[in-house]
Amino acid sequence: MQKMLGEGTVVFAQPVYVRSYAAAVGKDEAEGPLGAYFDIKAADALWDQGTFEQAEKRFFMEAAKMALSKAGLSNNDIDFLVAGDLLNQIISASFSARDLGIPYVGLYGACSCMSESLSVASMLIDGGFANEILCVTSSHFATAERQFRNPLELGTPKPPTAQDTVTGAGATVLCKEQQDICITAATIGKVVDLGITDAGNMGGAMAPSAVQTVLTHLEKMGTTPQDYDAVYTGDLGVFGSELFLDLTKQYGFDFSANYRDCGAMIYAGNKNKPNGASGCGCSATVLNGYILQQMQAGTLHRVLFVATGSLQSPTSVLQGESIPGVAHAVELTRRQE
Amino acid sequence: MQKMLGEGTVVFAQPVYVRSYAAAVGKDEAEGPLGAYFDIKAADALWDQGTFEQAEKRFFMEAAKMALSKAGLSNNDIDFLVAGDLLNQIISASFSARDLGIPYVGLYGACSCMSESLSVASMLIDGGFANEILCVTSSHFATAERQFRNPLELGTPKPPTAQDTVTGAGATVLCKEQQDICITAATIGKVVDLGITDAGNMGGAMAPSAVQTVLTHLEKMGTTPQDYDAVYTGDLGVFGSELFLDLTKQYGFDFSANYRDCGAMIYAGNKNKPNGASGCGCSATVLNGYILQQMQAGTLHRVLFVATGSLQSPTSVLQGESIPGVAHAVELTRRQE
Repeated sequence: MQKMLGEGTVVFAQPVYVRSYAAAVGKDEAEGPLGAYFDIKAADALWDQGTFEQAEKRFFMEAAKMALSKAGLSNNDIDFLVAGDLLNQIISASFSARDLGIPYVGLYGACSCMSESLSVASMLIDGGFANEILCVTSSHFATAERQFRNPLELGTPKPPTAQDTVTGAGATVLCKEQQDICITAATIGKVVDLGITDAGNMGGAMAPSAVQTVLTHLEKMGTTPQDYDAVYTGDLGVFGSELFLDLTKQYGFDFSANYRDCGAMIYAGNKNKPNGASGCGCSATVLNGYILQQMQAGTLHRVLFVATGSLQSPTSVLQGESIPGVAHAVELTRRQE
Repeated sequence: MQKMLGEGTVVFAQPVYVRSYAAAVGKDEAEGPLGAYFDIKAADALWDQGTFEQAEKRFFMEAAKMALSKAGLSNNDIDFLVAGDLLNQIISASFSARDLGIPYVGLYGACSCMSESLSVASMLIDGGFANEILCVTSSHFATAERQFRNPLELGTPKPPTAQDTVTGAGATVLCKEQQDICITAATIGKVVDLGITDAGNMGGAMAPSAVQTVLTHLEKMGTTPQDYDAVYTGDLGVFGSELFLDLTKQYGFDFSANYRDCGAMIYAGNKNKPNGASGCGCSATVLNGYILQQMQAGTLHRVLFVATGSLQSPTSVLQGESIPGVAHAVELTRRQE
């Protein structure tokens, strides 16, 4: 069987299965339209911790522990933790890896981390190097604001193209043993940079990379937008997802019927967050809350999940560099009854 | 064949081969005892760039391009770029990935990045998902100092346990096709944290993780220290490598005959850098300069290469958190003539 289709697209000889999944979120996420789908809801952003960074780690750990618990597995049953987050030196993932004691593959793909981890983990399982892998990622509004933008205490207004970082974490246990939902293929994205230098417009910076990865995946798999019940991008936000639809239309593809963006969904109706969400935790919580539950229920059968990351650093932005984007696609299928 | 030996140790059904390798270094590295082994030597730390960050990216790109050139391959022949670096949001790797246009798996493992990338890439190749993978990592004294410690302009003295970040990058092309040197096994490390909170003593913080990974690898592979011509840790430095020898001795292992640390080697004799080197570029340049050339020449036949990373962030250090360490081991073998 041909596993390599070229341009980063791979198919698995055996499907890699989703054994369990869990999402932990903050208050604004819990009060949004997807609130009912999240397993764990923190009362506030600090969640009894001393710092926001420790709180982000708690979201990471709670999602990880809940996914393990649903799988009926302990840390020792997991071959690898494949994880990352948005913070400098991915401290949420690394400190959690210490506490979990699982051999640790640390990733950085900014907000593309959930699909990057699922893609890499699926290759490790199908390659015969693991039976069970825990994939986790997290983000936190307060840690991301002070790292990437301004201290919250300043009360700096945001431009209308800015998005709000999700406070939350999502965890998936992937396995070799047959389950209802599986990953059948993935596309590791190339980095795309159209020269946007405004860190307040990350959706615009990431949309071209999402378009490239999705169209590559379709071409290599020989599929059309209509072959999927739904195509989800990670966190292009309201403006960025309009750009995704416009750009794909220019290439002759019509995604209008089944395309949605996790970042546009999670805060829909929240007047304080008009352009939606971003952050590793955005696509991670929507996948491990809403999307996988919809697949489990049989509402969705074939889904393309495309987490999107903008790869700038505060230093590179201050130095006038543009914002490169990346997107990785994971194709999920629900077994037909 | 059993590929999974447990506790993060994996063996490859088919060896994964080293097709080519290259190292680009700065002035102090070029003037050290390993200077003759490095392919590319920059005249100064800025290397005609506008910022030190752009200079670090140039080291990354020059090493990558030289490895591709030695392999006789172009960017389009490479299935994946598996890379990372020390900078926030791994901008050296991500901006290079944009320029290289290769599907990109971004990693963060601090200074363990070289062996993390070789381990992951080997699993992807042996798993059937790639024929050629480019593994690269870099660091730069000036970018690391201002990110992790103090602005150079302050002239802050360092404690005797501090190490100096290597300015340089190393690149390896791994492939499926048979070559003289191959990777036969790897151990993905667990994160170990003995509670050191002094970011000026990273060798001490990382040594226990190196010990754990090396002893796990030996146990799972059924080998002893004497089975290897050499065991190299990444950047424990002079003090940290003494600690490695002491700790392994306590566990009943004698590495005194064949153990060396890349960080203790690269600046040996340099009175301004008494505790040696650190940084992703340290183990990367020593591997892709000295070690692989020694293997190619037949001086070394079986080598355990163990890059080591300390996973703190400047924020976590200021918040009083301890410094977790991680180490990943890669076992390299030279074909006997």
